Amino acid sequence: MAERFDRIWHNARLATVRGDLPGLGVIERGVIAARDGRIAFAGSRSDFPSDADAAERIDCSGRWITPGLIDCHTHLVFGGNRAHEFELRLQGASYEEIARAGGGIVSTVAATRASSEAELVAGALPRLDALIGEGVTTIEIKSGYGLNTETELRQLSAARSLGRNRPVSIRTSFLGAHALPPEAGGDKDRYIDLVCREMLPAVAHAGLADAVDAFMEGIAFSADQTARVFRAAKTLGLPVKLHADQLSNLGGAALASEFSALSADHLEHTDEAGVAGMARAGTVAVLLPGAFYFIRETMKPPVELFRAHGVNMALATDCNPGSSPLTSLLLAMNMGATLFRMTVAECLAGVTREGARALGVLGETGTLEAGKYCDLAIWDIDRPAELIYRMGFNPLHRRVWRGK
Amino acid sequence: MAERFDRIWHNARLATVRGDLPGLGVIERGVIAARDGRIAFAGSRSDFPSDADAAERIDCSGRWITPGLIDCHTHLVFGGNRAHEFELRLQGASYEEIARAGGGIVSTVAATRASSEAELVAGALPRLDALIGEGVTTIEIKSGYGLNTETELRQLSAARSLGRNRPVSIRTSFLGAHALPPEAGGDKDRYIDLVCREMLPAVAHAGLADAVDAFMEGIAFSADQTARVFRAAKTLGLPVKLHADQLSNLGGAALASEFSALSADHLEHTDEAGVAGMARAGTVAVLLPGAFYFIRETMKPPVELFRAHGVNMALATDCNPGSSPLTSLLLAMNMGATLFRMTVAECLAGVTREGARALGVLGETGTLEAGKYCDLAIWDIDRPAELIYRMGFNPLHRRVWRGK
Ligand SMILES: [Zn+2]
Ligand SMILES: [Zn+2]
Repeated sequence: MAERFDRIWHNARLATVRGDLPGLGVIERGVIAARDGRIAFAGSRSDFPSDADAAERIDCSGRWITPGLIDCHTHLVFGGNRAHEFELRLQGASYEEIARAGGGIVSTVAATRASSEAELVAGALPRLDALIGEGVTTIEIKSGYGLNTETELRQLSAARSLGRNRPVSIRTSFLGAHALPPEAGGDKDRYIDLVCREMLPAVAHAGLADAVDAFMEGIAFSADQTARVFRAAKTLGLPVKLHADQLSNLGGAALASEFSALSADHLEHTDEAGVAGMARAGTVAVLLPGAFYFIRETMKPPVELFRAHGVNMALATDCNPGSSPLTSLLLAMNMGATLFRMTVAECLAGVTREGARALGVLGETGTLEAGKYCDLAIWDIDRPAELIYRMGFNPLHRRVWRGK
Repeated sequence: MAERFDRIWHNARLATVRGDLPGLGVIERGVIAARDGRIAFAGSRSDFPSDADAAERIDCSGRWITPGLIDCHTHLVFGGNRAHEFELRLQGASYEEIARAGGGIVSTVAATRASSEAELVAGALPRLDALIGEGVTTIEIKSGYGLNTETELRQLSAARSLGRNRPVSIRTSFLGAHALPPEAGGDKDRYIDLVCREMLPAVAHAGLADAVDAFMEGIAFSADQTARVFRAAKTLGLPVKLHADQLSNLGGAALASEFSALSADHLEHTDEAGVAGMARAGTVAVLLPGAFYFIRETMKPPVELFRAHGVNMALATDCNPGSSPLTSLLLAMNMGATLFRMTVAECLAGVTREGARALGVLGETGTLEAGKYCDLAIWDIDRPAELIYRMGFNPLHRRVWRGK
């Protein structure tokens, strides 16, 4: 009897991005078949049963299919915006003047605290829609603009709610250790107590976080403080990730590796010891060229060391109001290539397979392989390089999330 | 009797970008009224006749209206694409290897020569639609990938044809002196003879060019050769503009000024004498940060000198397959601010009023003023800075071209 599928996409070229195939894992005469929201077949036409039956058959006319894109590092949910601060900076305003005009992260914290969950969702939806419009099917969203238990919970709840408002998979990360709130009076250790003893247990109890993140930097938290947060996360059974070595080398990559972090992110100042640690731990390097570009950083992440040590590299938007108001993963890929000299294959793997790995969901999505969710992006392009080469152009033809 | 209009937009905030008003010429409680495709009124609600009559009244709900955007420097019409060359470069291929793989400008010339006018139009339409989708109402398109009379004419004819396919104003520039074609055997002077004696008269006779452009650079044409093209253009009554001082300072800005050029473009290496000449001649500085970014240039155009000397600055995409595959004028504004430190007001004026000035059409469009074409962009934003601050986000609500 003929095998039966819900939907078949045929006459397609596949960039499977499978880890066991070289380069992009290209299959020129490709077919994908879905059943119950998952990929039941992804391979060559010649291997597909000729008598297969399906409720719907879609002729892709030679278009390319990639895995649905994954944005594995965003701060998508926040109140307010910081366009005015940007304007003042261009007029030469000092940090003090901007702070007096209500700028900086404290302004986002204040606006987020003043927003209801519905307002946070409404504010994030246009940003989410921009990402979805480019073929994104999985997106990570961090808290970290609440900096108190109530608002951190609300921010994470809003993030989860976005996944009920749109056909997209949401992964949440609790980032209580993002910055010191004004009411902490400069006492970082006491705030980290609050994060570990109250906020993190509350978030875990509510089931609102898939991972725990922190910002380890001179302007944020120390290695000791970060380690305390990570130990508390491990106690609660939550995986960790880290904003590491963005502005200086405090050994963030090394610390993340010690805790077997899913990813270490930014990494502009990471040294070879840090890279070697990540390689041993299997920690993914999440590179964020949008922030590099926007804050006019000059130190680049050590891409050649990551290659030499076999560290997997992901790319993400870091979408946030202060240092990366970026809502295009296609542009993040162009920046990864142009600014960091990542190859086409590295960029595309960085927003698919490696993005999934950085979120701990590689078993479920991120490549075109039977058994995974049928998350696809179908493109009007002649070759995958066009996705990276062009700037400000969206060649998405169709997006498929869980088979639809 | 009540004054009658075709259409009224009310409850809007206007960034008129009028030259006689400070900053962006903001009118907080603004009204625009159109008649016969032109702006009949653009100003404050308090100055608008309360008994005005119109076939259609549009409540803008407090949205911002700017002039329709103007992209005053593009090479939008061409055959082929250069994504594969980009891919090879990232893999470390040398220029020779890329040339052997069929890359470089000669590949675009070959593909353009091999394309029919209909193919050139079909290839350009997705790029044009991306620009239109961001509120562009006027776009300049250059020839320069034909490099023989027949193909240059076809390229310009295709550009004009785009204006019949879409509601947008097209301005064409003849750029025969863009590069030396392979068949010229290295003889630049003889090729410039052909440009001046055959190509330019043919283009002028066919009425296909609104201006004449050239590429003055070590890898392209000398000051003497450029001057010959400009003299031939002047003889035919056509205004000139110049790709000047992009990769080195050959005195392009100064030469352009001597010929009272509408604009000099790129200008990364322009010195103060060149800037002073432009100020005297009223030549607009067209800055192209997309090319600066894409080719990883480090020398920035002298923005502070342009300010000091009162040279007007425009911004454009330079959309082309080799050095700026950019189809977002919003992103060009972000790059102008982020990379060149232009202010919000300079960026927005650069894609409206100054773009119009660089094309010699400031009397017809580029600001919100009675008498000009009613070319509008209506935005879902809280302040104009958002148009420049964000990356990869399009807040366009509606676009209006000639009143519709
Ligand atoms: Zn971040
Ligand atoms: Zn150009």
